[in-house]
Amino acid sequence: MSNFWTSLRGKHAADRERGSEGMENPGYCSGSFDGLHHPSDDDDDEMVDIAGATLDFSSTDDVPPLSSGVYEEHNGTSRTAGMNGSGPSRLVDPLEDPLPGVGTYEDFNTIDWVREKSKDRDRHREITNKSRQSTVALLHSISDAFSGWLLMLLVGLMSGALAGGIDISAHWMTDVKGGLCLRGFWFNHEHCCWLSNETTFQERDRCPQWQSWAELITGKSEGPFAYIVNYLMYIFWALMFSFLAVILVRAFAPYACGSGIPEIKTILSGFIIRGYLGKWTLIIKTITLVLAVSSGLSLGKEGPLVHVACCCANILCHLFTKYRKNEAKRREVLSAAAAVGVSVAFGAPIGGVLFSLEEVSYYFPLKTLWRSFFAALVAAFTLRSINPFGNSRLVLFYVEFHTPWHLVELAPFILLGIFGGLWGALFIKANIAWCRLRKTTCLGHYPVIEVLVVAALTALLSYPNSYTRMSGSELISELFNDCSLLDSSQLCGYKQPANTSDTGVDNSLADRPAGPGLYTALWQLALALVFKMMITVITFGMKVPSGLFIPSMAVGAIAGRLLGVGMEQLAYYNHDSVIFKGWCSQGADCITPGLYAMVGAAACLGGVTRMTVSLVVIMFELTGGLEYIVPLMAATMTSKWVADAFGREGIYEAHIRLNGYPFLEPKEEFEHSSLAVDVMRPRRMDPALAVLTQEGMTVGEVESLVESTHFSGFPVVVSSESQRLVGFVLRRDLLISIDNARKRQDGIVSASQVVFTEHTPPLPPDAPPPLRLRCIMDLSPFTVTDHTPMDITVDIFRKLGLRQCLVTHNGRLLGIITKKDILKHMAQMANRDPDSILFN
Amino acid sequence: MSNFWTSLRGKHAADRERGSEGMENPGYCSGSFDGLHHPSDDDDDEMVDIAGATLDFSSTDDVPPLSSGVYEEHNGTSRTAGMNGSGPSRLVDPLEDPLPGVGTYEDFNTIDWVREKSKDRDRHREITNKSRQSTVALLHSISDAFSGWLLMLLVGLMSGALAGGIDISAHWMTDVKGGLCLRGFWFNHEHCCWLSNETTFQERDRCPQWQSWAELITGKSEGPFAYIVNYLMYIFWALMFSFLAVILVRAFAPYACGSGIPEIKTILSGFIIRGYLGKWTLIIKTITLVLAVSSGLSLGKEGPLVHVACCCANILCHLFTKYRKNEAKRREVLSAAAAVGVSVAFGAPIGGVLFSLEEVSYYFPLKTLWRSFFAALVAAFTLRSINPFGNSRLVLFYVEFHTPWHLVELAPFILLGIFGGLWGALFIKANIAWCRLRKTTCLGHYPVIEVLVVAALTALLSYPNSYTRMSGSELISELFNDCSLLDSSQLCGYKQPANTSDTGVDNSLADRPAGPGLYTALWQLALALVFKMMITVITFGMKVPSGLFIPSMAVGAIAGRLLGVGMEQLAYYNHDSVIFKGWCSQGADCITPGLYAMVGAAACLGGVTRMTVSLVVIMFELTGGLEYIVPLMAATMTSKWVADAFGREGIYEAHIRLNGYPFLEPKEEFEHSSLAVDVMRPRRMDPALAVLTQEGMTVGEVESLVESTHFSGFPVVVSSESQRLVGFVLRRDLLISIDNARKRQDGIVSASQVVFTEHTPPLPPDAPPPLRLRCIMDLSPFTVTDHTPMDITVDIFRKLGLRQCLVTHNGRLLGIITKKDILKHMAQMANRDPDSILFN
Repeated sequence: MSNFWTSLRGKHAADRERGSEGMENPGYCSGSFDGLHHPSDDDDDEMVDIAGATLDFSSTDDVPPLSSGVYEEHNGTSRTAGMNGSGPSRLVDPLEDPLPGVGTYEDFNTIDWVREKSKDRDRHREITNKSRQSTVALLHSISDAFSGWLLMLLVGLMSGALAGGIDISAHWMTDVKGGLCLRGFWFNHEHCCWLSNETTFQERDRCPQWQSWAELITGKSEGPFAYIVNYLMYIFWALMFSFLAVILVRAFAPYACGSGIPEIKTILSGFIIRGYLGKWTLIIKTITLVLAVSSGLSLGKEGPLVHVACCCANILCHLFTKYRKNEAKRREVLSAAAAVGVSVAFGAPIGGVLFSLEEVSYYFPLKTLWRSFFAALVAAFTLRSINPFGNSRLVLFYVEFHTPWHLVELAPFILLGIFGGLWGALFIKANIAWCRLRKTTCLGHYPVIEVLVVAALTALLSYPNSYTRMSGSELISELFNDCSLLDSSQLCGYKQPANTSDTGVDNSLADRPAGPGLYTALWQLALALVFKMMITVITFGMKVPSGLFIPSMAVGAIAGRLLGVGMEQLAYYNHDSVIFKGWCSQGADCITPGLYAMVGAAACLGGVTRMTVSLVVIMFELTGGLEYIVPLMAATMTSKWVADAFGREGIYEAHIRLNGYPFLEPKEEFEHSSLAVDVMRPRRMDPALAVLTQEGMTVGEVESLVESTHFSGFPVVVSSESQRLVGFVLRRDLLISIDNARKRQDGIVSASQVVFTEHTPPLPPDAPPPLRLRCIMDLSPFTVTDHTPMDITVDIFRKLGLRQCLVTHNGRLLGIITKKDILKHMAQMANRDPDSILFN
Repeated sequence: MSNFWTSLRGKHAADRERGSEGMENPGYCSGSFDGLHHPSDDDDDEMVDIAGATLDFSSTDDVPPLSSGVYEEHNGTSRTAGMNGSGPSRLVDPLEDPLPGVGTYEDFNTIDWVREKSKDRDRHREITNKSRQSTVALLHSISDAFSGWLLMLLVGLMSGALAGGIDISAHWMTDVKGGLCLRGFWFNHEHCCWLSNETTFQERDRCPQWQSWAELITGKSEGPFAYIVNYLMYIFWALMFSFLAVILVRAFAPYACGSGIPEIKTILSGFIIRGYLGKWTLIIKTITLVLAVSSGLSLGKEGPLVHVACCCANILCHLFTKYRKNEAKRREVLSAAAAVGVSVAFGAPIGGVLFSLEEVSYYFPLKTLWRSFFAALVAAFTLRSINPFGNSRLVLFYVEFHTPWHLVELAPFILLGIFGGLWGALFIKANIAWCRLRKTTCLGHYPVIEVLVVAALTALLSYPNSYTRMSGSELISELFNDCSLLDSSQLCGYKQPANTSDTGVDNSLADRPAGPGLYTALWQLALALVFKMMITVITFGMKVPSGLFIPSMAVGAIAGRLLGVGMEQLAYYNHDSVIFKGWCSQGADCITPGLYAMVGAAACLGGVTRMTVSLVVIMFELTGGLEYIVPLMAATMTSKWVADAFGREGIYEAHIRLNGYPFLEPKEEFEHSSLAVDVMRPRRMDPALAVLTQEGMTVGEVESLVESTHFSGFPVVVSSESQRLVGFVLRRDLLISIDNARKRQDGIVSASQVVFTEHTPPLPPDAPPPLRLRCIMDLSPFTVTDHTPMDITVDIFRKLGLRQCLVTHNGRLLGIITKKDILKHMAQMANRDPDSILFN
């Protein structure tokens, strides 16, 4: 059974380990915003003082007095009440709040999906029944039915707008590291030179309106001194931006750091982390994401955009009672928001929905599929109308290839898959080792210094190399693109074929021999590859918002482009060999290095995240051609298989495990042959299970039992001899109800009997009035027999989203299994430390 | 509890109702193929004589004698054995067959997902454990791991090849209705004229090598007489093809009729229909599909292609033990095959996967998602390499639009959505009413005559109108395409703007005024619309393979095109009005009637099938442009909402309900407030539940209890006084085991005690040896309490795939709920006849 106090202590320990000492009281907790929320508002923004949470619920003075008459009334209608469901909230109108606190959750606790969904169905039923009575109720019912769609529309609009803002700001700030626009400092490099008179792209990039820092400061644009000034300014701005980012995160929203996807996966699986999706996190994450991306650190904005979209969704949920009050319904919206995040990150709505389905979501009913799709579309079109890339394209990296691929090329594609898989596995191991080091040593105590050091290192090393100096997405964009004859990029530094007009070959994309420019580019790319591979390991997990998609894709794109150019040259010089004969004649365009870059990017991202279908679909949406699905598929599948051979976990699962969140991986099968009896508590040697009897215990006995144990719930049995199960009571509900009754109900003293039966048993005439608590008892606790194999039990937990399950033998109660017990057992079976599971 | 005999009788009744009297013994049952299969092969092709199935299992003489020693051995190791799991098959090596028959299912019964998945996990664990011992076992383990992918590859290849064959044959046979190629009768019209010297498309279509029947018979190609000859030949061939189709279906594979999707949905939800996916069904369905499509009936090949792909998958499953022996694993493959079917039907692999996920599948784990996608891709590329459409395009209807749409156009798009929804709802109601008429009146006794009459009617009415004379897919293709200036189709009979060169507008796609050709086309289209709407209602559900996608899309495309042309003319003549001002100037191409046709097609298909996301994605894959997703989305969503307002069921669910299959719709919520106690058997007035006690009953008593009841399973309790639940035994397993023991085990007589406990209780010295049956008992039956709300219970049934669930009250066994009970209860709550649920 879950250890409540341990979990609280664990929470604080974890907080400290998250490097947030001094962040326990972040700005938004200590003042102005407190008054805005009603205490029972269940606002994720309240960061409650958790250690005292169970003790101070009695201080909510605005609770209506709970007269015993209420109980009497329920007594007579208990059959009808029972008809309404199983949970404690069933006995009152589901549209109204029951006893404040009953049916809500502590921070860092697991929700009960069954109870939440049941509550929502009751709500829905209530509204449907009422809608037959009056027009107002009918309208309410209709607006309730469409509120989900409206919410999706709002989430899409807000996320799309935010993503557009982030893109524009990050673009400008990245350019500010290099110089300023004289026409107005708010123009970025591209816009500044947009109206310039120069005609070629190369000259336009050097338009006079845009001045580098050396020009502004020293007046010179060339020479070693100017280079050094630019270099220093680049480092200065990088340090400035990263310092601002980490300071803002530390001061206002510790939860805004990292990618956010591991936490969102955990939250979607039914965990409560209050404030993680709150408005302060949203504001700070949006600002610091721009700063972090602009600082030139090796990180991307895709993961954090998912977090931002989820924050938007969570905040907008407060507009609708249906979603504000129900944790399960809210998670449906959050699943859709995850799709929105990826949709705006890549401009790939279908890929986004599949990403949410494959990678992030836990409970994904079909209704959510439709709504996710709708929201993802709205967001993508909002972003397009903002037009941050200035090309009216929806997608981040728009590519158009002209040459089909040949079956022989599958070999290098699979090679890229192997590289991606190896790098993915290696990256996960190295990054986790580094993060563990940060958690366990004093390194974690200096997050600001860490960020500054890494930023300085990154800036110092990346400025000299033009491929690392440019931002990750620019790099990928350049690598994905195919060379045409006019292309001025160094990557396209091919020797111009002298005999073009002679042979009559007018294919401007034909394979050509590499020139000196290309060789330089290849060397720089190789260095960039090594640098990116190293720096990403220590960057991901720092206390700034950091996504992993762009750096992983960059690594893969560089490797792919290198291989692609190699293949191209091989084909050019050996077009008569066995391999190329028949499909690659001289002067033809056989090999597309850009395609190799794309395949490599997919392979590396696949190796790190273990996405498959969604990744292929995202890439498909980038190119729009079904032609290239097979290479992508081959590479991602190979990459997944290779990476899985070194460890089944993707980076997000690894981070979830590192943080000890209670996450039951839905993808993996439980492969051991244990039985429920091996996992349940109490163990063979332990004292018997703490149970309540349905009658015969006094309030005092119950209170002392509750106080002497740390379990978060207690089974109720007919009698301690028979051990026949009646129901299950949650500790929190029990404490709230007893406390309430002692304060507001006449005659409830320690000697009062606690009664869980339908009808009060005959009491001695001088006894105090009994305390009837059937209403807070779950009458339909889940049970399995002791012989149930754990694979089935784990399946039940996953599919139904249980918190706990009781174990019986021949009809007698034997023990209990909680989600934490299962996770501990799984950790034990995998030879890991079972105490790494911190939360319930 | 499920009524076994009733269900058998129900099965026969249903068979008869399916119009298959005289088909109970189809050709493939009565001979040659019987000898090929081992009786325990669990081959779906065997159409067992169901009524006798439970009685003749004892005749399998190749069963090794089951000595009591085996039981003794298990006695000592029962703890270890228990470790292996709960089911009856757990006590023996999961790779070997247990007692033949134990753990298999009757025809027309529901499978137990939990048991099947558990069995597969045991198998997997066994192989993993063995793989550590020897290299051979390791290789076996690796080949086992990759067998799923290999199977997917084979399914993709086979389905793609079959679909290509079907496309080519149907194309040729459709053309044969019009004439023959002199260069070789095996050329279709297009191929025949491929090498013709005529240059324009119009002339090429009239190449001399291709002769109409009138030319061949009378030598004349023009004039009323030639027209009549062609007309008659058209009708003759239509009758011929449809007659062949219906006769083949009747004689060899009654299951080959219809679309197959309702049955596949039911099978995927965990139902057994032996022979439905067998090789005879495959062969006959493939042949008759070509015949039915060519006959000109208003039907499509998309649904049947899903059925064909599923047949391929099921047959190929027999190559792999893993899939042959496990009903749950096989269903994963079938889910992927459904994706393959749609992938080859439209050339839309992603859409196919989403179709399987959204519309067909019941249990769709992520692993299946990846594999479906792989198989769908393989199939699409196999089809493309066969190149049935002769244009090296992957997709059935390739369209490319050049004009973006304007926000104002959303109004007509939503109008199309409303039309689609209304038509969908109307179609479902009319079609179900017609099918019910066929089932209940003597109409159903003459399926051949029905098909011939409908075919004659269709041919008679459709020949005069060129839009109905062409096949459905040609019609849709023509309607989807945009008119260019050169287009010779009647639909593009616009007046050529005289002043093109004067105004300098060189936009060849500019809106133009309608000419007389277009007006004729519009009239013909309007007539075609009415005709298609009528004839499809009576065609769908006849005893020939018939898909619904193409006819529905055709209706929508016609309506859409009509509206599109209307809008175009409105815009042309009113380009200065408020609506069009600002975005539609004179001479611009504002309205794309082809897009309207596409939106209309999506709306109608959405109204009929209630697909949303998968439909939009399929359409997206047809055009490849994200631009047009919003109109499609708006139309399908409107269509779904409008249609849902008239009835929540799509056509497939309606047919499932019509046939009384036990299908728990995963999309709909259970909306009533009943409790488990209201649904369970026995009812309040009924006699008590038939239970076995774990000891103390003799073989004779057990046999008489089993024979006096019709339940398909019995709970085992500690004693009839305490009613504490121990386990659950299936009727089939019990009968097989007792019968086996009586024959092969010494001393088992009617007076022998049946013992379900771990240790044999002390028996009187003169008693016969006990029959130990713990090994066939399920030690982990699912239980819910009597107070569990039915919405939760239904959720458990759906998510875990249960057959039955026991109901307890305070630890005592109270009753049982089966899937059938739930379906009956749901029918009752919806004011439908609960006896319409025929099967368990």
